[in-house]
Amino acid sequence: MGQGGGVLRSIEIGALPLEAGGVLPSVTMAFECWGTLNAAGDNAVLIQHALTGSTHVSRGESEEDGWWEGLVGPCAVIDTNKYFVVCANMLGGCYGTTGPSSIAEDGKPYGSRFPFITIRDSVEAEARLSSRLGVTSWHAVIGGSMGGARALEWALMYPEKVRRCAVVASCASSTAEQIAFAQAQVLAIRQDPHFVGGDYYDGAAPTTGLGLARRIAHITYRSEPEMGQRFGRKSQDDGGTISHVRLAPEVGGQFQIESYLDHQAHKLVGRFDANSYIVITEALMSHDASRGRGSLEQALKVASGVEFMVAAVNSDRLYFPTQSEELAAALPGNVVVASIDSPIGHDGFLTEVAAVGDLLAASLFRAQ
Amino acid sequence: MGQGGGVLRSIEIGALPLEAGGVLPSVTMAFECWGTLNAAGDNAVLIQHALTGSTHVSRGESEEDGWWEGLVGPCAVIDTNKYFVVCANMLGGCYGTTGPSSIAEDGKPYGSRFPFITIRDSVEAEARLSSRLGVTSWHAVIGGSMGGARALEWALMYPEKVRRCAVVASCASSTAEQIAFAQAQVLAIRQDPHFVGGDYYDGAAPTTGLGLARRIAHITYRSEPEMGQRFGRKSQDDGGTISHVRLAPEVGGQFQIESYLDHQAHKLVGRFDANSYIVITEALMSHDASRGRGSLEQALKVASGVEFMVAAVNSDRLYFPTQSEELAAALPGNVVVASIDSPIGHDGFLTEVAAVGDLLAASLFRAQ
Repeated sequence: MGQGGGVLRSIEIGALPLEAGGVLPSVTMAFECWGTLNAAGDNAVLIQHALTGSTHVSRGESEEDGWWEGLVGPCAVIDTNKYFVVCANMLGGCYGTTGPSSIAEDGKPYGSRFPFITIRDSVEAEARLSSRLGVTSWHAVIGGSMGGARALEWALMYPEKVRRCAVVASCASSTAEQIAFAQAQVLAIRQDPHFVGGDYYDGAAPTTGLGLARRIAHITYRSEPEMGQRFGRKSQDDGGTISHVRLAPEVGGQFQIESYLDHQAHKLVGRFDANSYIVITEALMSHDASRGRGSLEQALKVASGVEFMVAAVNSDRLYFPTQSEELAAALPGNVVVASIDSPIGHDGFLTEVAAVGDLLAASLFRAQ
Repeated sequence: MGQGGGVLRSIEIGALPLEAGGVLPSVTMAFECWGTLNAAGDNAVLIQHALTGSTHVSRGESEEDGWWEGLVGPCAVIDTNKYFVVCANMLGGCYGTTGPSSIAEDGKPYGSRFPFITIRDSVEAEARLSSRLGVTSWHAVIGGSMGGARALEWALMYPEKVRRCAVVASCASSTAEQIAFAQAQVLAIRQDPHFVGGDYYDGAAPTTGLGLARRIAHITYRSEPEMGQRFGRKSQDDGGTISHVRLAPEVGGQFQIESYLDHQAHKLVGRFDANSYIVITEALMSHDASRGRGSLEQALKVASGVEFMVAAVNSDRLYFPTQSEELAAALPGNVVVASIDSPIGHDGFLTEVAAVGDLLAASLFRAQ
């Protein structure tokens, strides 16, 4: 399975009890894979996507570039001649895994009936998937942003199955500020009249709400200097002095940064489900490695056999480098906090693929 | 007039042509004042409020504390035994000055018909007000945040009438990031179905949209460490392990930071008009001291006779201290950038009244 890769597959994993209560009666996990699993089932690598990410890490045999294009492939840093690479769509997502837009047992989409899920619930579902695939242990579990939260939870929930773990542009627990920005995004969707409490699948989708959520999020994904240098106060329609004054939208006046954010919103709305956005955002709000496990140090001790690499983007102002440092300091053993040098902000973990590759090549994928 | 102060007054200033075109046919300027204007009309101080601020700087003879309580009064830093202190509600506001909720000539509220205005339009209206009051020149014009933008424009539009100017937690022009956050806020209101394009005065007000705008804004007014130390991941209803997991809103689960932001939203919605929020936010987006005046240095040269004090809150991540430094560097003459030491972020210009007072006492209000 998956030698060439880049094709969406799915596996049924049955009923899944949930951390906060309730059960999903029948769960499908969608994934892509590249390379070939060895007989021992231990040459596998799990790559975890971010909030609105998909399973499409690498183009493989598909026509479309992946979100970490170049990192996975024959002779790449994550060499598919050696490794069997998996990327699963998170529980609650809209890229093939069971989520709010999936059809429930009564033949209708879950919508508002989709339960609250946590990062740990998704890892549990991913663990079932990996068993079905025949993976006995991961050479490495790697993730950025929310993917980093899932990678970390893998090392804590299944330390015997995770030999190495990379947590990139992420943290040990979502902070008050991250929760605050997340709340604004969730409210933006819930307040859209087309949201209808989540049961909008037979009508218009809450695209204006989802678009606003994306705008808010995207600002936090970029650094202030990056936006300043790229857009500054330039107007979209360069019509002289008056264009430097913001005109009312009906007159068409707009700053370039506004047009850029409109474009980001438009792109997401065309590819993502609003309920999935809420479900995954709330799962991320719940992220806390120490929940129910004592202090953070106590919670992380279980992963003393795991080799960690923790990396932050130096200009990240959503997942501050200090949060990576705090995680690294609390992890057992010697953990290096690596820095991804980028002026872009949080999104640097996606745009600086080569830097991420260099860090992985020098740590979890160095020649043995 | 206004010896005791703290009482809202208003003056008609007639028709006002606007920078971006159009005219407001009849403008009322609301203001409060404290102390007594001298015969020369030159012992006056103008204090400029921030985005959602009112004219109520100081309680004076009223029952209610002002937003810079303690700074203005008999024997205070701004001594009302010496100075005649004025605070005017900005053009477009909802605290007595003509704004979108005001009644137009046809007997109905302006609503969607209220024109786009700029910071300079408000300063023009304030200049008319000051002439009506008999002010010949200001001892000082002082403002924080958007009030700082208005203070700066006073020094550039009427340098002969401004002897001193304090620009606190503000900048020379709104940056791409500030515009981006402002756009999200404006959209939050416009997307509320109760907004009805701005003509909602005979129905329900767009309170959910305005509340969301306030939440977004408030996050930017506070620093990440402040939110982290004050709220962290604490849950509002402390019911054990499960309460640390965010529950769906219908179950009542909520983080303290969410409840705090809900409270901030609720407070603003009860005291502010959504159309005014949009009009003033868009005016702030338009803020650019150099618009139509050449380079920033060229634009500021006209104020070479004005004594400036520029101050930033050291933890401000909306109006970064570097923006104050850039403004100070471009201003003519020797300008000191003072720092307000506060962990709170932008709102430090409001919470650290004593520090603001000390800076003013050491600069624009030092003993002559």
